[in-house]
Amino acid sequence: MELEKDSYSNHISHQFNEELEAIRTQMLTMGGIVERQVNDAIEALLTSDIELAEQARRIDKQTNEMELTIDEQCTTTIARRQPAASDLRLIISISRAVADLERIGDEASRIAQQAIEMSEGSRTQHGFQEVRHIGNLVRDMVKNVLTAFARNDLEMAYRVAKQDRNVDQEYRTAMRTLVTFMMEDVRSISNIMSVIWVLRSLERIGDHARNLSEHLIYQVSGTDVRHQSLQSMKKTVREETADDDGEEE
Amino acid sequence: MELEKDSYSNHISHQFNEELEAIRTQMLTMGGIVERQVNDAIEALLTSDIELAEQARRIDKQTNEMELTIDEQCTTTIARRQPAASDLRLIISISRAVADLERIGDEASRIAQQAIEMSEGSRTQHGFQEVRHIGNLVRDMVKNVLTAFARNDLEMAYRVAKQDRNVDQEYRTAMRTLVTFMMEDVRSISNIMSVIWVLRSLERIGDHARNLSEHLIYQVSGTDVRHQSLQSMKKTVREETADDDGEEE
Repeated sequence: MELEKDSYSNHISHQFNEELEAIRTQMLTMGGIVERQVNDAIEALLTSDIELAEQARRIDKQTNEMELTIDEQCTTTIARRQPAASDLRLIISISRAVADLERIGDEASRIAQQAIEMSEGSRTQHGFQEVRHIGNLVRDMVKNVLTAFARNDLEMAYRVAKQDRNVDQEYRTAMRTLVTFMMEDVRSISNIMSVIWVLRSLERIGDHARNLSEHLIYQVSGTDVRHQSLQSMKKTVREETADDDGEEE
Repeated sequence: MELEKDSYSNHISHQFNEELEAIRTQMLTMGGIVERQVNDAIEALLTSDIELAEQARRIDKQTNEMELTIDEQCTTTIARRQPAASDLRLIISISRAVADLERIGDEASRIAQQAIEMSEGSRTQHGFQEVRHIGNLVRDMVKNVLTAFARNDLEMAYRVAKQDRNVDQEYRTAMRTLVTFMMEDVRSISNIMSVIWVLRSLERIGDHARNLSEHLIYQVSGTDVRHQSLQSMKKTVREETADDDGEEE
């Protein structure tokens, strides 16, 4: 039954299908680990939970290794299977996605590091409200883009990219607030700088989540939407969704 | 003569060789543009040259497009030519390299943006010495890693990666100095924050230059040295260089 289905596709074999699916599953597994790492790092900072911060930092080694392993499988699969267009796109998209996931992990690790350093100095809550707020936005983005990948849901991917603009705005507002805090309370400058680095990491995680949504759109539609406006990304997604509904047929 | 040489390699044709060489040349051209962009952005900041800053910012659009074009050529070449191991590695390495070059361009663009914003406020020279110093280190890294790519020089690539550790140390020292400046001169906090973002961008450019050196080492040696210690990177490079000298034969 499944072999019959394969005869309609470009896949060389049922085995090749399984190979692609295995790579995809590993990428999603890595995504789950990184998502948890982001949640833990933010939580560790806000609750001064050193143990949780240490744990979030340790995960980094694991995600680094996963990046290398998945990337190697992508390369081996290309070399051995010589995939045609859409399968090649899937592999390239996953390879790009693991690079962004690894960088999200790096940023989470940096947040965890700041959580540890801040717990050593005098505690200030300056900017914590901003961290919580932007942290929640960014956590949502990471969660949603992974769901979009799991479901090949381009509309959802587009909404994640759109959300990034919101994060950028909130980030700029928060920066202005924190600079004001620094001027008003000179003794807290060091601590506020730590919060600034955390916000910067959160903003970067938002960027990588947007990148991930671009990789999925490329994978499914074949259009490379990097460096494009949201408007033109929307157009690509709408065209692709219309195709699915048979409207273009 | 050249066709004869090809018969010893895995290349399908002389034309394929030319295709690979063309992609490689474009990557190096993009590298040259980005290198100049970094130089201009730093110079614009240090000399308050708004015109130069605007120019450095405009280049960003061009490098974004080059990333997409080169990446598409990489994908098309893989799909059409189905390259074997070492050619595939060359293509993957170039694809990764253009991503890092594009990000270096982004950071240069951010530096240029800060140069423009700082020229509008009250001028402070706080941190300019640090920008000049770390800027010079980072410019050297970018220049050298591109030369390493042009010559397939792994020893040079390794020295660039090693240099990144130096940049990270200088960056941390500069950050401490700037936080002290902020405490001593509250009115300059906004301006010093701008300098901090510039230093951060420079530090990131150093990271990307290191990444580039890793891509070259992967391309030539077949060993993926990302997330490895300098020590183990050195080992890979030494083994590869020994191979070249026939010592291992």
